[in-house]
Parts: sequence; C-alpha cells; structure tokens
Amino acid sequence: MKIIVIGASGTIGKHVVNALAEGNEIIKVGSKSGDYQVNIADAASIKNLFEQVGPFDALVSTTGDAYFGPFKDMTEANMRVGIDSKLMGQVNLVLIGQHYINPKGSFTLTSGSLADDPVPMAAAAGTANGALDSFARGAAIELVNGVRINTVAPGVVEESPAYFPYFKGHIPVNMHRVAQAYVKSVLGAQTGQVYKVL
Amino acid sequence: MKIIVIGASGTIGKHVVNALAEGNEIIKVGSKSGDYQVNIADAASIKNLFEQVGPFDALVSTTGDAYFGPFKDMTEANMRVGIDSKLMGQVNLVLIGQHYINPKGSFTLTSGSLADDPVPMAAAAGTANGALDSFARGAAIELVNGVRINTVAPGVVEESPAYFPYFKGHIPVNMHRVAQAYVKSVLGAQTGQVYKVL
Repeated sequence: MKIIVIGASGTIGKHVVNALAEGNEIIKVGSKSGDYQVNIADAASIKNLFEQVGPFDALVSTTGDAYFGPFKDMTEANMRVGIDSKLMGQVNLVLIGQHYINPKGSFTLTSGSLADDPVPMAAAAGTANGALDSFARGAAIELVNGVRINTVAPGVVEESPAYFPYFKGHIPVNMHRVAQAYVKSVLGAQTGQVYKVL
Repeated sequence: MKIIVIGASGTIGKHVVNALAEGNEIIKVGSKSGDYQVNIADAASIKNLFEQVGPFDALVSTTGDAYFGPFKDMTEANMRVGIDSKLMGQVNLVLIGQHYINPKGSFTLTSGSLADDPVPMAAAAGTANGALDSFARGAAIELVNGVRINTVAPGVVEESPAYFPYFKGHIPVNMHRVAQAYVKSVLGAQTGQVYKVL
C-alpha cells in the first residue's frame, strides 16, 4: 500500500510512520523535511504534491497549527491561524486529494480532544478540531469508489510536554495508542468515524 | 433584558423575536433590515454595531451562510463561504461582543444537526456547524463575569421547504420547538451546551 504521511517527522507523525512501515511504501512529507515538501496552507502547493507523488492508497495528516491564548484577548486573526492551517490545510488535502486517491483508499486527519473536552486558552484549537470531525462525517457519505475518511482525536500526547501546563488533570496519552488509532483508520474498514485517544 | 437578535427577520429569527418579546427590549438586527444593520463577515461592521447599540444582556444570532453542493466538485472557495460567514461571522460576534456584554449576559449562536448527522451536499455547512459547537464549549469556560454561551443546533426547519430535498427522511422541525431552544439558552442558566432540536 502506498501511504502518504503529512507531518512525517512530527511528534505523532514519526510514530505513525513506524507503525505503518512494514509492508507498505511510506511517502514522508513535511513542511521542510521528508521525501516531499508541502505548505498545507497553500492549495497550489498541495496540488503540486499530488502531481509529484501520483496515485496513492492512503493519506495520513498529522499536521496543522492553531493559536493558544486567553479568550478575552482573542482576535479574528488568532482564530484564523487554526482555520487556515489545521482546518483548511487538512480539508484541502481531501478536497484536492480525492482526485488522486486510488479506489478503496482512505484519508485520516488529526483533530483532537479539545473539540468536546475544552481547556482554557484553547478555544481556537478546539474550534478547528470540531470542524474537522464534522467535515469527516460529511465527506464520508459522499466520497466515491469506496474511499474512506476518519479523524483521530488524541488528548495531549506524552511526547509534547510543552502542552502539559494547558491540560491540567489530563493524563498524557501514550504514543503507541495514538499511532494505533491511525493504523486502525488506514488498515480498517470504517468511515466517518472520530477515533478518540484518551 | 436588552436582547440583540442578529437575523431578526429570518426564518428562525422572527420566531425568536416573538418568543422573547414579552418583557424584554429586543434590538432587531439584519443585513439590510431591522433597527440596525450589520455585515457579520466584516469585523469592523460588528464593532460598529456594538458601539451603536451599547451594553446589552443577551445576543442571539440566527444567521450565517454556507455552501451546499456535491463533495466531488467542492473547492476551498466553496468551503470558505461557511467559514467566513456562518462560522467566523458568529465567532466574531462573540470575540468582539464579549467587550460590550453586561455581567451575567449570554451569547446564543446557531449551528445545526449537520455537525453530526450529515446529508449529501452539505459537508461545508456541517463543518461550520461542528466548529461552532466546539467554539461555544471552549469559550464557555473562559468567559468572565458570569457571561454564558450556547449553540442551538436545529434540524431542517418546517418553514424552509427549499432545504427539504437535501434532508431525505428528516422530519422538519417545528418552529415553536426551535424558538424555545433559544429561550432556554437566553433565560436559562446553562453554558457551553449544544441544544439539539430534532
């Protein structure tokens, strides 16, 4: 199976690459590293990626930025960081990628627990996450040729200690459990699902 | 109680105005009609509205556009209609309005059943809806001075027959039930809730 991993060198992405490596061709993509580079905030850059990589069987995205900061000072520009990167970046991977993916392929995007388990300073990230979960549900019922789509919604992960201060009382999530949720999406058969990893 | 209703002349808005009229001062706002006009896609227009209206106790938004059309042809521009209008328009009403609302006030936004009960042609609208529900959950835990926020998530409403062909098998929702969900949000005491009306 030919699997594109966007964010392949990231905290989650490198574990996804390892978990899927055996028996599959992994195309590692990053903003600056990997086999190919892409700027997911730029639709032209995404189209260029698919033109270079050619037909594929699965795309996993573990990337996307969002703003963290106090709600009382939050501006439209702060909100738009997550909208343009984490949300629309990943949405565009699907809107454009649907024209390159092989029959019975799959898309797996990354949202997060903040969609329905909010913490202070994270309203912008939660908004992007909730949007992605609903996008996947909506896309799942229209994708053709057996193509599937799911999101993985992890809590704060054990290898991101910089985020721990935002997530008081949350148990950081084990990386193996997170990576297996992506494996479940890619190698399983479900669609339109949100795989929460808590 | 001084209540601003954005979209006051709309299908849902006019019922909300009627349901809240007794004993309250209702400020009707529309894009072209009402006591005041606002373009919710323009942050400057929103700020200008609050400057004119002055302090208020509740804001209800029943407005916002989104694209309906087949997923296979959907573009970033199509998705951005709902992002810029239904999502960011309503988000900006809160981001800006939090600096004008009275203590113990409330915001009530409109999302919709498509966030988790998708229908074909509606992935863009569902995305905006899911984002709004998560935004309200995140904002609720940071708003100060007892200010609350909820969303109302109606199914297709009985007075919008133009949408019936998209919602096969859905029972159109009674307008009284829809309007009462807004009343529950404004005159109740809960926050961070999604009031589904199905």
